[in-house]
Amino acid sequence: MKTLGNPTQRLRLGFVGGGLESSIGSTHRYAAHLDGHFELVAGVFARDPARNRAAAEAYGIAADRVYPDFQSMAVAEAAREDGIHAAAIMAPNAVHVPASLAFLDQGIDVISDKPLAASLDEAEHLLERVRKGPALHLLTHNYSGYPLIREARELIASGALGEVRLVQVEHAAGFGTRALEQQGAKALMWRTDPSQAGASSVLADVGVHAHQLLRFVTGQEISQVSAELSTLVPGRISDDNAHVKLRLGNGARGMLWASFVAAGHRHGLQLRVFGEKGSLYWHQEDPERLEVRYQDQPHQILRRGEAWLSESARLSTRIKAGQPEGLLEAFANIYSEAAERIRARREQRAPSAQGMLCPTAEDGLRGMRFIDACVKSDRAEGRWTEVM
Amino acid sequence: MKTLGNPTQRLRLGFVGGGLESSIGSTHRYAAHLDGHFELVAGVFARDPARNRAAAEAYGIAADRVYPDFQSMAVAEAAREDGIHAAAIMAPNAVHVPASLAFLDQGIDVISDKPLAASLDEAEHLLERVRKGPALHLLTHNYSGYPLIREARELIASGALGEVRLVQVEHAAGFGTRALEQQGAKALMWRTDPSQAGASSVLADVGVHAHQLLRFVTGQEISQVSAELSTLVPGRISDDNAHVKLRLGNGARGMLWASFVAAGHRHGLQLRVFGEKGSLYWHQEDPERLEVRYQDQPHQILRRGEAWLSESARLSTRIKAGQPEGLLEAFANIYSEAAERIRARREQRAPSAQGMLCPTAEDGLRGMRFIDACVKSDRAEGRWTEVM
Amino acid sequence: MKTLGNPTQRLRLGFVGGGLESSIGSTHRYAAHLDGHFELVAGVFARDPARNRAAAEAYGIAADRVYPDFQSMAVAEAAREDGIHAAAIMAPNAVHVPASLAFLDQGIDVISDKPLAASLDEAEHLLERVRKGPALHLLTHNYSGYPLIREARELIASGALGEVRLVQVEHAAGFGTRALEQQGAKALMWRTDPSQAGASSVLADVGVHAHQLLRFVTGQEISQVSAELSTLVPGRISDDNAHVKLRLGNGARGMLWASFVAAGHRHGLQLRVFGEKGSLYWHQEDPERLEVRYQDQPHQILRRGEAWLSESARLSTRIKAGQPEGLLEAFANIYSEAAERIRARREQRAPSAQGMLCPTAEDGLRGMRFIDACVKSDRAEGRWTEVM
Amino acid sequence: MKTLGNPTQRLRLGFVGGGLESSIGSTHRYAAHLDGHFELVAGVFARDPARNRAAAEAYGIAADRVYPDFQSMAVAEAAREDGIHAAAIMAPNAVHVPASLAFLDQGIDVISDKPLAASLDEAEHLLERVRKGPALHLLTHNYSGYPLIREARELIASGALGEVRLVQVEHAAGFGTRALEQQGAKALMWRTDPSQAGASSVLADVGVHAHQLLRFVTGQEISQVSAELSTLVPGRISDDNAHVKLRLGNGARGMLWASFVAAGHRHGLQLRVFGEKGSLYWHQEDPERLEVRYQDQPHQILRRGEAWLSESARLSTRIKAGQPEGLLEAFANIYSEAAERIRARREQRAPSAQGMLCPTAEDGLRGMRFIDACVKSDRAEGRWTEVM
Repeated sequence: MKTLGNPTQRLRLGFVGGGLESSIGSTHRYAAHLDGHFELVAGVFARDPARNRAAAEAYGIAADRVYPDFQSMAVAEAAREDGIHAAAIMAPNAVHVPASLAFLDQGIDVISDKPLAASLDEAEHLLERVRKGPALHLLTHNYSGYPLIREARELIASGALGEVRLVQVEHAAGFGTRALEQQGAKALMWRTDPSQAGASSVLADVGVHAHQLLRFVTGQEISQVSAELSTLVPGRISDDNAHVKLRLGNGARGMLWASFVAAGHRHGLQLRVFGEKGSLYWHQEDPERLEVRYQDQPHQILRRGEAWLSESARLSTRIKAGQPEGLLEAFANIYSEAAERIRARREQRAPSAQGMLCPTAEDGLRGMRFIDACVKSDRAEGRWTEVM
Repeated sequence: MKTLGNPTQRLRLGFVGGGLESSIGSTHRYAAHLDGHFELVAGVFARDPARNRAAAEAYGIAADRVYPDFQSMAVAEAAREDGIHAAAIMAPNAVHVPASLAFLDQGIDVISDKPLAASLDEAEHLLERVRKGPALHLLTHNYSGYPLIREARELIASGALGEVRLVQVEHAAGFGTRALEQQGAKALMWRTDPSQAGASSVLADVGVHAHQLLRFVTGQEISQVSAELSTLVPGRISDDNAHVKLRLGNGARGMLWASFVAAGHRHGLQLRVFGEKGSLYWHQEDPERLEVRYQDQPHQILRRGEAWLSESARLSTRIKAGQPEGLLEAFANIYSEAAERIRARREQRAPSAQGMLCPTAEDGLRGMRFIDACVKSDRAEGRWTEVM
Repeated sequence: MKTLGNPTQRLRLGFVGGGLESSIGSTHRYAAHLDGHFELVAGVFARDPARNRAAAEAYGIAADRVYPDFQSMAVAEAAREDGIHAAAIMAPNAVHVPASLAFLDQGIDVISDKPLAASLDEAEHLLERVRKGPALHLLTHNYSGYPLIREARELIASGALGEVRLVQVEHAAGFGTRALEQQGAKALMWRTDPSQAGASSVLADVGVHAHQLLRFVTGQEISQVSAELSTLVPGRISDDNAHVKLRLGNGARGMLWASFVAAGHRHGLQLRVFGEKGSLYWHQEDPERLEVRYQDQPHQILRRGEAWLSESARLSTRIKAGQPEGLLEAFANIYSEAAERIRARREQRAPSAQGMLCPTAEDGLRGMRFIDACVKSDRAEGRWTEVM
Repeated sequence: MKTLGNPTQRLRLGFVGGGLESSIGSTHRYAAHLDGHFELVAGVFARDPARNRAAAEAYGIAADRVYPDFQSMAVAEAAREDGIHAAAIMAPNAVHVPASLAFLDQGIDVISDKPLAASLDEAEHLLERVRKGPALHLLTHNYSGYPLIREARELIASGALGEVRLVQVEHAAGFGTRALEQQGAKALMWRTDPSQAGASSVLADVGVHAHQLLRFVTGQEISQVSAELSTLVPGRISDDNAHVKLRLGNGARGMLWASFVAAGHRHGLQLRVFGEKGSLYWHQEDPERLEVRYQDQPHQILRRGEAWLSESARLSTRIKAGQPEGLLEAFANIYSEAAERIRARREQRAPSAQGMLCPTAEDGLRGMRFIDACVKSDRAEGRWTEVM
């Protein structure tokens, strides 16, 4: 079970993005605070100075730690004795890499939202820098934080379902069903602008969640893809739907579906993994339930908090089975594991096994390579294309 | 509401296949009898004479109407004054076309199980014959018979969900998870033998169900496919999994997944159709429930038998909402509609609108063309391939 | 697996009730025909002569076997060499006993719909007669026919869940939400008329289904009740809701809820049984799924047709797991078992174990005693009252 | 949408109970912190001095604000300029009233866990004190905090389902399936000890949750009960199961089931409310879904976060529809509303409508009267008994 840490030992955190109108910003704040590992003390919350100040005031940030841009924030915080331990980046995709570099160069650890970068080149460049250290680059692939996703990972690793043969994964949402970006809807405007979102909007925004979930649970990498990227809403200038056939490292096959235009879906992330003996089913909108479907035995329902779950699932759990946890708790698991990584680096020790579950820039790079291969396959009439 | 017809007016039916060990044969018998439209009076139930006789006796067939082969059956029954009105064919795929031709040539209507044929050539040849008449060729694509599938078709046709943009359909079963055909499991032996099952076992066996459901509900044809056919169980000599990306006639996109190796799935046929305003979800294992997921309204659950369903759904219904119907009733709808078609032909009148819902050889030909295009795309590294 | 029997060996069946407008009549006809054990050859289908003839014609009944009343039918059929083996009674409750007696007295077996009688006195009187033999009195408590209800019974009997401690059972329907009997709705008119339905409409109509399901699955009898019978729809002259606390023979406790006014429920029959180690959950609207909820193990889902189910469940099954069966099939199980009982009596042999699952007048008497005790407890301010 | 408040304006909170081994204590800490309204600064966390200190250290409490008992805490905190605004009480039931009185007498607001008291007398005495003011007494009936429970309340109040006729509510858990209190299981030891838990363990522990949910959603009070309290686990000295028939103020009927011995249930709180036109179904283990079952329309599924929900539901919501919230968020809603009530009192203004949703001692008194009436009815052979 998690416990709220001692606030005197909280890590100091700064934000890039996360203003009052940002829904992902609010999620980051809840997640960072929940277990008591972080305290938000600095930030550049919005480009517009008035909005920046308004957010800072609402969050109780001292006036001298509200910055006009991430560059000045990185320099000033590095110079303070009570400077931030880590910077959390939740700005549009194109900001991820430049901001990450600014903090890494000052020795400040980075907790970045996904996707890692706006292009594969940028991602490769970032990885070169990250590998030099010493600062860490961690990625909030938040859905990896769900306790039953950890249980699924353990079940596959244990061989209980046999070798993985098939994976069907999708993150198909309905929020882009209409071209509201043409009517000024901000969240859709930057998501559907290739100059901000990169070569595939739909893969950068939701596809990488499905991709990471598949990798996290199966332990397999995707080796080849046959993809189609489509624009299904008239007038849209980016793609909004991706259908991808997959070949995995171990010879397994799969399909990944990413969409903005799955009308009627409220969220739409789900995973099915089929091994030789049975399969797993998990849906993010009902995250407290993992269905294990054996071929030659009755199907089972596993629930978060049950006594027979793996240690990895138990360490991701706060309250009892039957009393639901949700996304904030899953996201907070990622933040807690980020805290463990950050502390371990500063204490010059190896992080705990649980800390190692926190996704990193290496995972992000895999996501960018996947996007890149999909774009190439799409342009080559769907032909099978290697993922580097 | 259906009623059991007057047995004095029953149509006389003969079987090709459907012996005592045949599970599909038992389903056909239940379905043909349920509404009282047919009486089983003749047949060739098995190749083995002893098994043929045993089945005939169990079914109460007069000794002079048990035949050694479909050819002699077609000739003899055509010569009798009380000869069969229709022959129902439920033998392995390779028998479908030769048997169909034998009965058509004698003016006897045919009710064939799917797939239409073992190859596209054979199917085209059959269609040439069928189009000459006068006997009918009807196809028991049984899942089209479910009341809520008819409701789904009406909902799409009504425009309630707007233009169709996306279709995700799958028939992914687990019965071939192990290579039991190598241990003498008959049902798997002929299914995984390309000489009996055709160029793609998995598409001929389950893929065409998914294909037909998509067509029946959306009213759209598939124009192009990008397919991969795989053999995921070591030692198997046929394919056992197909992943197919779809382009539909109206520009919509989709995915079709057909499998024998979805371990843990008991049946695995499901359909999701996404329009501009919302989507439909239906699963064959829970067939009394149609989920309608609007983007800008609360989701709705429709159930068979409810007063507000379409006439087409109501005419497919026997008992009240809340008292479950199942596959036998859905299959019996197809048989009842076949009876209407057969009677209309003999009475030289147009069949009812409901009778026109019964799938035909034309539908079967679409299925064979789909399989053919998938095989070609698979051999061409997944490239997009026209469906003729 | 069931098979359609040889029609030359069909038992001859007559109907009392079941005219063209009767929904329960249509269900009985489907159920009696499905497995091929019975042939409907005689009947009095309606009081009104024109309706009686219309039904007979639709069902293909010879003119000389359509009767004006059950008395003449019993006498005439007993006198024929090809007379009926059994009479199925599906008229209003007050007809059940007089019609049953008429056929029993002629040595004709009776298959009666529930409840057994319109009053406890009548029921006791019938039982006296039944116990003298030789003709059988069987009761179509149809929900006992579901395969997973048989599985539930076996699970409890096996001790897998330990001693039964708690039972929560309900049949709470919504069809009487409005007082449509005052606007001429026939099905509600006789149900809410105490002179036809007996002392408690709601218990006679739906409560006894819940009562029988509880008994069938747990093997326990109810020893005491504390009941309230209410009229929740203004203007209604019968009760329409019953809340009953239960004490079972083994000391277990329970609740039974029966209602016509559970607005929004399409059917509403469900059962939960709690033992020392876990519990069962089954809902009639989703009858292919039995949830087994262990306290100290993962929950399991059992489905009809799975290989590990009991023999009793397997013998109640026609088609494969994953291909749904429904109420008609469950009802047909009762008819098939009635056929076994009827044949065994005529062949002077013991019926099979499966045949013994068919409910009888003894079960019906238990239901009538339960109703009687509930009525008494209700009149005594809810005090605990013995069930005789 | 909620936002994390400015920490400089946080209310200062002290705990009575909530040590490191207390699962409810950890839930209170998460809930109090989540929205940033409270800061835990003082407490008596355990009776054992070493455990008290250990908890205080883990929570970062200054040494001079860790107290040996609630009396000294109340006096000392009232004397400090930076003393606590509110005391949260989460000790065993018998401590609730004495601790509440100690803080109220010092003008410190109280946030107490349920039940209000260990006996009705004690509860009446407390209410006398509470009504004199000025300090507030608020009750963390946490399940009232779920957004869809607020939606349900609004739906009933709006008349969308017509007048309420029936309520079926239950909190039936499985944690007491075995008499683990005899093996030293602490959580069961105090729950099943009448001297600590009061006259009915099962009603005090879980029954009052069901009772409050019914009242909160329907707006009706229970006027009469017919109850049975049972001990179903051999050797237990308290009750562990309660079956209660209900009569509501408006003439509606209902059933309440409370249990520790519903083996296999992980939590087991659910509510069904039936009006003239339809019904509601909500289950705490799937709290993001409210099923609205209309009699004469398709059933609807409402989900937290959807645009068409009431203002009351929206104000209880943090993140988007489709991204699950859970119990901690529901509990935090209660704490946020408590904060609004506490601030409004200190600012001498009326609380917001949302703040008025926070349950109070008046609600708690209703719960105690309900328990008292159930105990009396049980002793009177289940006779209908007035709830004062």
